Amino acid sequence: MSQPGAISPRPRVVIVGGGFAGLYCARSLAGADISVTLIDRRNYHLFQPLLYQVATGGLSPANIAAPLRGVLARQRNCRVVMADVTGFDVPGRRVLAHDGGRDCAFTYDTLVVAAGVRHNYFGNPAWESWAPGLKTIEDATRIRAKILSAFEDAELETSPERIREWLTFVVVGAGPTGVELAGALAEIARRTLRRDFRRIDPASARILLVEGSERVLPMYPPDLSRKAQRSLERLGVTVLTRSLVSDVRPDGVTIRSGDMATAVGCRVVLWAAGVQASPLGAALATACGAELDRAGRVVVRPDLSIPDHPQIFVIGDLAHARDASGRPLPGVAPVAMQQGAYVAKLIRARLDGAALPAFSYVDPGSMATIGRAAAVVDFGWVRFSGYWAWLLWLFVHILNLIQFENRLLVMLQWAWNYFTWGRSARLITETDGTARHPPSSVDG
Amino acid sequence: MSQPGAISPRPRVVIVGGGFAGLYCARSLAGADISVTLIDRRNYHLFQPLLYQVATGGLSPANIAAPLRGVLARQRNCRVVMADVTGFDVPGRRVLAHDGGRDCAFTYDTLVVAAGVRHNYFGNPAWESWAPGLKTIEDATRIRAKILSAFEDAELETSPERIREWLTFVVVGAGPTGVELAGALAEIARRTLRRDFRRIDPASARILLVEGSERVLPMYPPDLSRKAQRSLERLGVTVLTRSLVSDVRPDGVTIRSGDMATAVGCRVVLWAAGVQASPLGAALATACGAELDRAGRVVVRPDLSIPDHPQIFVIGDLAHARDASGRPLPGVAPVAMQQGAYVAKLIRARLDGAALPAFSYVDPGSMATIGRAAAVVDFGWVRFSGYWAWLLWLFVHILNLIQFENRLLVMLQWAWNYFTWGRSARLITETDGTARHPPSSVDG
Repeated sequence: MSQPGAISPRPRVVIVGGGFAGLYCARSLAGADISVTLIDRRNYHLFQPLLYQVATGGLSPANIAAPLRGVLARQRNCRVVMADVTGFDVPGRRVLAHDGGRDCAFTYDTLVVAAGVRHNYFGNPAWESWAPGLKTIEDATRIRAKILSAFEDAELETSPERIREWLTFVVVGAGPTGVELAGALAEIARRTLRRDFRRIDPASARILLVEGSERVLPMYPPDLSRKAQRSLERLGVTVLTRSLVSDVRPDGVTIRSGDMATAVGCRVVLWAAGVQASPLGAALATACGAELDRAGRVVVRPDLSIPDHPQIFVIGDLAHARDASGRPLPGVAPVAMQQGAYVAKLIRARLDGAALPAFSYVDPGSMATIGRAAAVVDFGWVRFSGYWAWLLWLFVHILNLIQFENRLLVMLQWAWNYFTWGRSARLITETDGTARHPPSSVDG
Repeated sequence: MSQPGAISPRPRVVIVGGGFAGLYCARSLAGADISVTLIDRRNYHLFQPLLYQVATGGLSPANIAAPLRGVLARQRNCRVVMADVTGFDVPGRRVLAHDGGRDCAFTYDTLVVAAGVRHNYFGNPAWESWAPGLKTIEDATRIRAKILSAFEDAELETSPERIREWLTFVVVGAGPTGVELAGALAEIARRTLRRDFRRIDPASARILLVEGSERVLPMYPPDLSRKAQRSLERLGVTVLTRSLVSDVRPDGVTIRSGDMATAVGCRVVLWAAGVQASPLGAALATACGAELDRAGRVVVRPDLSIPDHPQIFVIGDLAHARDASGRPLPGVAPVAMQQGAYVAKLIRARLDGAALPAFSYVDPGSMATIGRAAAVVDFGWVRFSGYWAWLLWLFVHILNLIQFENRLLVMLQWAWNYFTWGRSARLITETDGTARHPPSSVDG
């Protein structure tokens, strides 16, 4: 057993990032005679698949976030460091970081980089201030404030045109996150807020879901996409496929479909359209000559290491890995978890002088939920949708929450919300007091 | 029944502030043939007595905050407006406000001002950036980040002297909030974080509770103060009575006891020492010539109206009211709730051309909790402390939460925390990304 403060002669594994990939790697190293250091900018692991529930007031941040130290408290071979990784010194085998005030470095024998992805505005970084994406708890509480404030502003507005603007919500991108956000928005407008206002009718809100490809959930089989679209339309979401958002302004967007460009007045635009790699991918590429793909992800070998650097692994959304047939693996939680566990196993095997076959992904199937009591599930050998798909979706998500306590509380909160149509975490909060009208969006 | 958008010829009551006083006043007007407008800067009612639990990671903000619109959704004679009240036009009977972008005004026949209090740094406003107080959800999440980050920084620090600084927590003021914060801090350090760190021992943290008067909980009978102090000391809190914090710096405080001044190196200072009235008290005084006390509270008549303005009431913490024997009423939730209900009853009585006797406060007793399973309770006719006092404290607080859902979830979360010593909402979050080292405290 390691004692706090003792200097360890054991092999040192440094893991950058405490998401699904990094955390599952660290946990899979439990008990090994290895000194593990997990570095993250945050002090918690975030269950991103349910983040849209925080953004729409159904759950609290703490319901889907587990303090990393708490999760790893009993794993004595692992220490957690809260710091910002800034780069890599590959010849010196060091991870460079700073923790706010100080610079620090962490020496490794094996390095695992699992720094994830962020939003991609496709060359329009200015859009970010009008069209926030959903990756962090702060994103979620900001989006929650933006959605709720729009109804507040509509209630105080007198011009019908501007009321219409406040009550128009545009979701860009119809992958699982976009579909889930649009579905939840529809529920909020049609049910949760039904009795809350005196002048406006929240149910008159328009929710537009804009998708560039020809169908929603384009990674799913076409019949599930059709079912998802029907469910969304039944909830009152307007689905625009083969459509692109070509401009985002504080008071509207331009939606282009083929040759036609339409200006839509709206105040809330949510971005669920694309991701780009963490800048640590590029930092790693610079440090050791790794190759990056177009989205900035690091191209890895079949064992998830970097060519010519067998002691450096990249896993999770940051990795560009391919399956046996050469198709790139999707950026989803099951890939990240399995990669984390695989690298841990490989590190253990190497300690024993053994080797492992290449990583191979076992697809557990895909699912997405569409508002209340509707979901689509694709297991490859069976596909279904509707109520039972939703129950399964719920079960799988709750089961994968990290802490038992969270599982219990989320289940109860969900049951409550289900039967009451409630979303009690409808709080407009922000630390700088500008939740409602960020300085850049005050419009006189 | 009022219809949304209909213009009402009914008497208009405008209530400023959705805390205990304002919300209980609005609810007590349910069913009356009156048009009620409740204005608040926030979109939620906050159960402040449990705010220290959010600040110490035991509960989530949504557990103790209830959306005002949700609470009042079925009360059709009441509308909720989310806006910043800026002043009063008393001759024109208007409340002036703005909602971020626009200026707006709300005409009243009866005005109820319940704008509450904020922290008082006794002429040292600069201290606020080092020593946050605890009044809002943002305060609570900021304090939570500050406490947790201190342990993170201590873990990365190498100089023993600076580790000591990071692990010294100073709570200024030993009223109920200060006592509850100090007790919770001791629990976190000694139990919750026990296994979480590898280099530091969280249990070595020092918690100093500094109180100017001669005993903790000075508003309680001396024997309960003694019991509270013993409980705090058993938890490992150092109690310094007859002591004042005479200076606050980013890296320490000066504590003065009699002629002796001691410099204490510390990084976390929490302010629970005093309150001053909302600036709306002064605005009202300017607008209608009301008298203010030293803390800026509005001096009210026995029926809680302002002299010469029988249609303007001030209630809750913002009011300086006295009981029958001339003693000022304390700024606690029961006073606010009873005043809110009283004014509502008085407004109804006046509609019928009737009058009411002066407001008289029925003291339900006082209680404060000291960490885990210990509390002091003073009912006047009986006083007790310890485990049963704590159970009663818990029961009364949960019962007074506004929404049944919150009651249920808080009870469950509390039971969970009790049996596991856990505090799962240990999240370091902030929207501007500077949670850990606010710009002003970065120390190179």
